[in-house]
Amino acid sequence: MRIDILTVMPEILESPLNCSILKRAQDKGLAEIHVHNLRDYTEDKHRKVDDYPFGGEAGMVMKIQPVDACISRLMNEREYDDVIFMTPDGATFDQPMANSLSMAENLIILCGHYKGIDYRIREHFVTKEISIGDYVLTGGELPAACVVDAVVRLIPGVIGDEQSALSDSFQDRLLAPPVYTRPADYKGWKVPEVLLSGHEAKIMQWRLDQAMERTRRLRPDLLDE
Amino acid sequence: MRIDILTVMPEILESPLNCSILKRAQDKGLAEIHVHNLRDYTEDKHRKVDDYPFGGEAGMVMKIQPVDACISRLMNEREYDDVIFMTPDGATFDQPMANSLSMAENLIILCGHYKGIDYRIREHFVTKEISIGDYVLTGGELPAACVVDAVVRLIPGVIGDEQSALSDSFQDRLLAPPVYTRPADYKGWKVPEVLLSGHEAKIMQWRLDQAMERTRRLRPDLLDE
Repeated sequence: MRIDILTVMPEILESPLNCSILKRAQDKGLAEIHVHNLRDYTEDKHRKVDDYPFGGEAGMVMKIQPVDACISRLMNEREYDDVIFMTPDGATFDQPMANSLSMAENLIILCGHYKGIDYRIREHFVTKEISIGDYVLTGGELPAACVVDAVVRLIPGVIGDEQSALSDSFQDRLLAPPVYTRPADYKGWKVPEVLLSGHEAKIMQWRLDQAMERTRRLRPDLLDE
Repeated sequence: MRIDILTVMPEILESPLNCSILKRAQDKGLAEIHVHNLRDYTEDKHRKVDDYPFGGEAGMVMKIQPVDACISRLMNEREYDDVIFMTPDGATFDQPMANSLSMAENLIILCGHYKGIDYRIREHFVTKEISIGDYVLTGGELPAACVVDAVVRLIPGVIGDEQSALSDSFQDRLLAPPVYTRPADYKGWKVPEVLLSGHEAKIMQWRLDQAMERTRRLRPDLLDE
């Protein structure tokens, strides 16, 4: 999978894209992630990526031209499954969406910044608008990093232990059961007896009961759907 | 405001916490953000922060001891409003939660990683569990960066233009209206006439109509609540 991220703040993405699982996925050749600084696609001598909004609102707006230039160049080179725009009013990102994006070949992710981007970009270039949740962030860079992380870790071979990903929260619409590690007794706080019993069937039953109980108590909406 | 982030992967947070708005907030003395490497709080010679789960599940689990040591040291130094654990089964983060956290003095944010953290940490240290959305990420580091960004930008003085933050999506339970910048005509794609009219009352009415229309079409749930 290849992911091209378009941003006016490439420096924010430096460490998240080059650590841990995302580093490993790239080192193994399972994912190629390219960050494009939109300033490199400007045509004026001040390399302006933003300008004042029409109608006199507060804030600055990202210009069409650099986005057009960057997307056009990429699309000349290969076909893209989607041009995704990260925006708080997009469709809310969730695990099924991550699963489906993990099957794409090539993705463009455009990060908004400042007050927003010229709406004509959304009308003419963007094929999918995604929000990571109902809150406002400084830009689309952290949301893009979240989407890339959620998607890339699903590519076969990226996480060492695929069994581990399958038992994560949401994959079966249940919250994960509690987990414990050594010591069995920490300052008097004890691990549930059953987990120390070695009785596999009882442990599986306990985990399922806990997952159901936690989901019913904390996220009953997941069971309704 | 002071925020202490506890993590086993401090390197992921390096660039997000030191760019753009978060850098500016720290430079202006409006926010202090400290990242603690849990490995520095281990007591064994291998500096182990994780161990195998009891009951033989796949994946690794974060140990209590380093988390206990770090939180205890911090709590000896000052009082904290909350010890937040970033986890996909926490309460879903939203703008009202960001608004309320922006009024805290001192926050601890604990990032999960691997398969999860020893459940006793959640029972004995954590006061708030927050999820940034219904999807699984490699760790709690990116979610912590999102929460810090959403919260810190609300501290008075952090964003230059406070009017701009007030008209963001969600602050009034409406999606933001479209924004446009120059040129008024780009390859035949035109900015709506009204925004070029200079007629302030008409522009305000247009913006409200657009915000209502977009909210009704894309996020009718926001109007129901």
